[in-house]
Amino acid sequence: MDLKQIAKDTTKTLISYVTYQALRVVIAQLDETEPKRAYWLRQFSHRVSIQDSEVYLTALFQEEQRIAFRLLTVREHIVEEMADYLPELLRTGIQQANLQQRTQQLERMTQIDPATSTSHPEQSEQPEQPEQESGYQPDSY
Amino acid sequence: MDLKQIAKDTTKTLISYVTYQALRVVIAQLDETEPKRAYWLRQFSHRVSIQDSEVYLTALFQEEQRIAFRLLTVREHIVEEMADYLPELLRTGIQQANLQQRTQQLERMTQIDPATSTSHPEQSEQPEQPEQESGYQPDSY
Repeated sequence: MDLKQIAKDTTKTLISYVTYQALRVVIAQLDETEPKRAYWLRQFSHRVSIQDSEVYLTALFQEEQRIAFRLLTVREHIVEEMADYLPELLRTGIQQANLQQRTQQLERMTQIDPATSTSHPEQSEQPEQPEQESGYQPDSY
Repeated sequence: MDLKQIAKDTTKTLISYVTYQALRVVIAQLDETEPKRAYWLRQFSHRVSIQDSEVYLTALFQEEQRIAFRLLTVREHIVEEMADYLPELLRTGIQQANLQQRTQQLERMTQIDPATSTSHPEQSEQPEQPEQESGYQPDSY
């Protein structure tokens, strides 16, 4: 597991995602002040994908440099405001998501289908699912 | 600008992205130890998109709970190892990306096309681009 490469790739993905959020902010602002320009920016963003934010910005600079400069400012502002909260949000988020997945699976593994147990009570002790090869192996990697 | 909502959405996107990275790790591990299962997991991941990681995991739990449990463990491990570095990586990353965009644009705005200035030297002082309405407005939002 190359954690350094994963961290690098994650940062790149985050930058693109924050740029997408900055775009949403700028469009909302333009909706208030310059609706025609907001319309234009929506059309532009349908033409050019923001999946890779740097390619998107390079294209935007060639057509509307004022908006492109504003996007740079807004995305940097979002990062400044949000960065320090990310570790805690991410840790809490992944723990909650994992707990939810494990709970769901535990419920599926232990539940007795009420319909089956009512109409065929003699079958209610049969396992609902075929057995898996093994269970949770926290130390297997 | 609803920074709280942006932080929440960003965390969700990050969780899905880290799950995708965990999937890549698990596939690489299975390639070494259980190639047939690695093949199966690749096929499964073509069938079910990991774009929404929680939907993907719920589907995976119904077909191969052992791998699903392993994914939960690996993604939590990645987050534990990486979370504290993210603020610095993200700040540095966005600053570098913004600097690069601004430098590129400055070069485009100030460059004189050598071909034009050689063949038509009398035109070399004309602006290359039509003027924009305004420049960099750091305080405009």
